[in-house]
Amino acid sequence: MFLSFTGDSFNIMSLTVVGSVAFDALETPFGKRDKILGGAATHFSLSASFFTKVNAVGVVGGDFGEAEWDVFRRHTINTDDIEVVPDGKTFFWSGRYDYDMNTAQTLDTQLNVFETFDPKLSENSKSAKLVFLANILPMLQKQVREQCSNAGFVAMDTMNFWISSMKDAVIDTIKVVDCVIINDAEARQLADEPNIHKAARKIMDYGLKALVIKRGEYGATLFTQNGYFSAPAYPLESVFDPTGAGDTFAGGFMGYLASQDEINDDTLRRACVYGSVMASFNVEKFGTERVETLDYPEINQRFRDFKKMTHFDDIAFEQASSAA
Amino acid sequence: MFLSFTGDSFNIMSLTVVGSVAFDALETPFGKRDKILGGAATHFSLSASFFTKVNAVGVVGGDFGEAEWDVFRRHTINTDDIEVVPDGKTFFWSGRYDYDMNTAQTLDTQLNVFETFDPKLSENSKSAKLVFLANILPMLQKQVREQCSNAGFVAMDTMNFWISSMKDAVIDTIKVVDCVIINDAEARQLADEPNIHKAARKIMDYGLKALVIKRGEYGATLFTQNGYFSAPAYPLESVFDPTGAGDTFAGGFMGYLASQDEINDDTLRRACVYGSVMASFNVEKFGTERVETLDYPEINQRFRDFKKMTHFDDIAFEQASSAA
Repeated sequence: MFLSFTGDSFNIMSLTVVGSVAFDALETPFGKRDKILGGAATHFSLSASFFTKVNAVGVVGGDFGEAEWDVFRRHTINTDDIEVVPDGKTFFWSGRYDYDMNTAQTLDTQLNVFETFDPKLSENSKSAKLVFLANILPMLQKQVREQCSNAGFVAMDTMNFWISSMKDAVIDTIKVVDCVIINDAEARQLADEPNIHKAARKIMDYGLKALVIKRGEYGATLFTQNGYFSAPAYPLESVFDPTGAGDTFAGGFMGYLASQDEINDDTLRRACVYGSVMASFNVEKFGTERVETLDYPEINQRFRDFKKMTHFDDIAFEQASSAA
Repeated sequence: MFLSFTGDSFNIMSLTVVGSVAFDALETPFGKRDKILGGAATHFSLSASFFTKVNAVGVVGGDFGEAEWDVFRRHTINTDDIEVVPDGKTFFWSGRYDYDMNTAQTLDTQLNVFETFDPKLSENSKSAKLVFLANILPMLQKQVREQCSNAGFVAMDTMNFWISSMKDAVIDTIKVVDCVIINDAEARQLADEPNIHKAARKIMDYGLKALVIKRGEYGATLFTQNGYFSAPAYPLESVFDPTGAGDTFAGGFMGYLASQDEINDDTLRRACVYGSVMASFNVEKFGTERVETLDYPEINQRFRDFKKMTHFDDIAFEQASSAA
């Protein structure tokens, strides 16, 4: 067991996320959208909101409308710490996915108010037991982590851009968190090591309690100090829009952990599966469309599907009865 | 249940493999070997020999020595149908793996006696209940399959070369077998479909009972008419030499099935895991070196490791106790 929350005043405002809130424009082989709600903190908090109370910390411009706020409100996400810059414009990203749906081609990035994002955490946000530092400047992630002195389990994402341009800062931040949730290529790049298991060991050695490596259509892999767990991806014949899948995974992962009394190998494994469950829904429609309409029976049904598709009976091979 | 062998005279000479027996020259970042035993039928039968009796069908030249025959003998593999062409030379392949160990670069291929390989099956080989058609010319695979009229479960491999040069012949052969065991890229190429689940459905629709898609470091995926199963790869920090991993997988898979009284979703799942177990040993040393020295406790220990690394408790999320 890493951490026990039993007897704590844990269920109130238990999870804080800091990251981007954005408008996205997307083109996929299945259609396009000119301006839809996006951003790491958005995808994360929507996903996590199914499991726990979430404080979202971010910044938007005056163009962020009632329709967008409504999405957060409907999911009881606390948006007190989403700063509004009335004269500014919300972060805008435009991208295109080609037929293989694996990598996005960025068409346009307008940082707008996000360029000078300086996360301001209320006492409420600071006091969360779990914190997720979505992909922002690593120095900012570290500042936020240091403000949340009460936090028992802090996880972070990052991206190739920071790893190539300021790896030392990324590593400095890793050293003050408990868990890193990154993708395959980022892990190899960060550790400068092509073998993913060696790379994982190197990253764990910065002092992590857990490392989750997201592998897209191949699922997710969890490394802990004593354990190794592999979850497949849900078999989908159509990936409609992968934008936000990683943050939706992280939201399910951290949200589920926040809902549990303990963080240990067992809850981390189930958190990985719930993360995979949520991500599998996210990619079925554009942006947040699918996750917005989810319900608990759907979530639990897919969780059980994961159990079914990985189950095999633990029956050792009996040499005597058959071979030789 | 697809097939029941109960009450049958099943345990005697139950599995036949047709494919290459070769000498390999290998270079990897960890070392090199100038001339070691290789070939699909070799890797397959060594692996399968831990689970059942195997008949190997192939061809070698006069340069195939006692040391090589000894490897087969020590594993009680029936080599009566490995034809010897005294004046010919054994199939020779030379390849190199770079640092990422994922794809082999072929340096030299000398087909030698394998160029005119015309598999001749004895009554014994023909009468096997399970048959594996390793990667050879698809028309030859089909001829062999037709000779084995007694076979209850026939599986085949193929390769990108045949799929690009004679896809129709590959499909003709698929239509007369029960199971295809191929890699990721081959499945996409065969189905002309980037989504692996759509590709799998298209291939299954040729009339298969099972399809196994090998995904290298990401494990293996089993499709059956009513089921889907995903097995991870064993987490290895050093992949020493991946040559023959696919055939070793197939050997464990088919060998395990041959040892069971029934082929059904449960035994196919465990076969996938035993295939993964055997492949994970194969890559730990050069060529057949590691599999040659395996024992049952090691095999079963690794099987249990697979169980551990995929296990999670089937506990649905309880909304009331935590969220909203």
